[in-house]
Amino acid sequence: MNNTLLNKNERIDDLHLNNLKLIQNPNQFCFGVDAVLLAHFASKGIKSGSRTMDMCAGNGIISILLSHKSAAEEIIGLEIQKDVSDMASRSVILNNLSKKINMVCGDLKFASDIFGKSSFNNIVCNPPYKEYGGGLISKHNSAAIARHEILCNAEDIIKSSSELLMPGGKLAMIHRPERLIDLVTLMRNYKIEPKRLRFVHPSYKKTATMILLEGTYCGRPKLVLEPPLYIYEETGAKYTDEINLIYERTAELKDKSEGESYER
Amino acid sequence: MNNTLLNKNERIDDLHLNNLKLIQNPNQFCFGVDAVLLAHFASKGIKSGSRTMDMCAGNGIISILLSHKSAAEEIIGLEIQKDVSDMASRSVILNNLSKKINMVCGDLKFASDIFGKSSFNNIVCNPPYKEYGGGLISKHNSAAIARHEILCNAEDIIKSSSELLMPGGKLAMIHRPERLIDLVTLMRNYKIEPKRLRFVHPSYKKTATMILLEGTYCGRPKLVLEPPLYIYEETGAKYTDEINLIYERTAELKDKSEGESYER
Repeated sequence: MNNTLLNKNERIDDLHLNNLKLIQNPNQFCFGVDAVLLAHFASKGIKSGSRTMDMCAGNGIISILLSHKSAAEEIIGLEIQKDVSDMASRSVILNNLSKKINMVCGDLKFASDIFGKSSFNNIVCNPPYKEYGGGLISKHNSAAIARHEILCNAEDIIKSSSELLMPGGKLAMIHRPERLIDLVTLMRNYKIEPKRLRFVHPSYKKTATMILLEGTYCGRPKLVLEPPLYIYEETGAKYTDEINLIYERTAELKDKSEGESYER
Repeated sequence: MNNTLLNKNERIDDLHLNNLKLIQNPNQFCFGVDAVLLAHFASKGIKSGSRTMDMCAGNGIISILLSHKSAAEEIIGLEIQKDVSDMASRSVILNNLSKKINMVCGDLKFASDIFGKSSFNNIVCNPPYKEYGGGLISKHNSAAIARHEILCNAEDIIKSSSELLMPGGKLAMIHRPERLIDLVTLMRNYKIEPKRLRFVHPSYKKTATMILLEGTYCGRPKLVLEPPLYIYEETGAKYTDEINLIYERTAELKDKSEGESYER
């Protein structure tokens, strides 16, 4: 049956997590540790029965992880690229998650027209990290669209989230530290108050390379800084205990993990 | 001679740094590690010949540390409390720094009337950390004024800094992490772009308890996150090597440092 779900160049990757699998095309954008960290971080803010949007859903990795890691009742993955959204839909079928996850192809800038205003409890977004300087990047390259703010930027995401979230609803994002100021000022501009912030460091002596940020729509100002999250132990290429916990790794998988790269 | 510089209840503390000394009144606010970390952090942004303001100067600790640690040519310490400003002036005399440091008693909210607009290259501020909820705190208590936003708040400091700084001039502050969002949004509102951010952790497994933040007046958006600064080694009460470097400690002083508290 699985083969009928696969298009040319696609493969099925085992997520080593509750028997979940993901269809990926190695010629396109493949998920990295950031997706796993965001799903873990966001799941803490998702209450039982939540209607959750996975914005910039890509191949659906966040939606599929949240189906296992969070208490969300309904997950809608919104992805602008038709072929990528289609591939994510097939991953949902592959995992028998069609009752919980619905993949939709659409432009997040018009999401509140599609889904209605104030219709979500949670939004989770692993956005393109890099500002689009124009010119050099092919606008039609799928991986480039996932990495660069070609089809949407941080303001589009935050503005749309403020329309989609109910008061008290939460937007969780992962991004680069150099964009922190942009993100928090945009969030405040759109009444999403930054409430929870965590820095992700390659190891404890190194500068953070990722930020996890959660804001609450119509929330009151009060930021809680969480403890730093370290990917690797200082010595050797071993993941920290916390990373192994997040990946729900067994001893067997810990060995395999050595040498893996966490970079996008 | 020194005794004539001392008022009742005051003492002279040896800063163990280039033979510098500081007059403090143990019944009032005494400096902590935050002043030392801020002076170190800010000194990196102070170019030779700089006119620097130490805003909320208190007992003058930052001014005196900057006279040694930075390339500032002229340092003006602005402090609103007359007796505290007077004590700081006597510390300047005690250290023979009158040619470099000038302590002024005044309200930072009117600083640009006193000193002129666009008249400083650098402003360094160790502000009151806690929001003033009103009521419970004595408004006349000197230590309370140093800790709580009674006579000035973060917006007063940032607004006044934007008036005092030349374009390209820098404001360096230390504050609590829970105020990060307020600080960076206020800075942007007043055209002081946050450019350099460092988190200070008690030790590497612990959440940061202080932030060091530098913004540039009329600067272009581009935040540089610096490596985390850890106060103590994980095991035992020993300061990290970086803290000992910042304190310019000798081996003898390292021993003495054990058991000291860094909390304000």
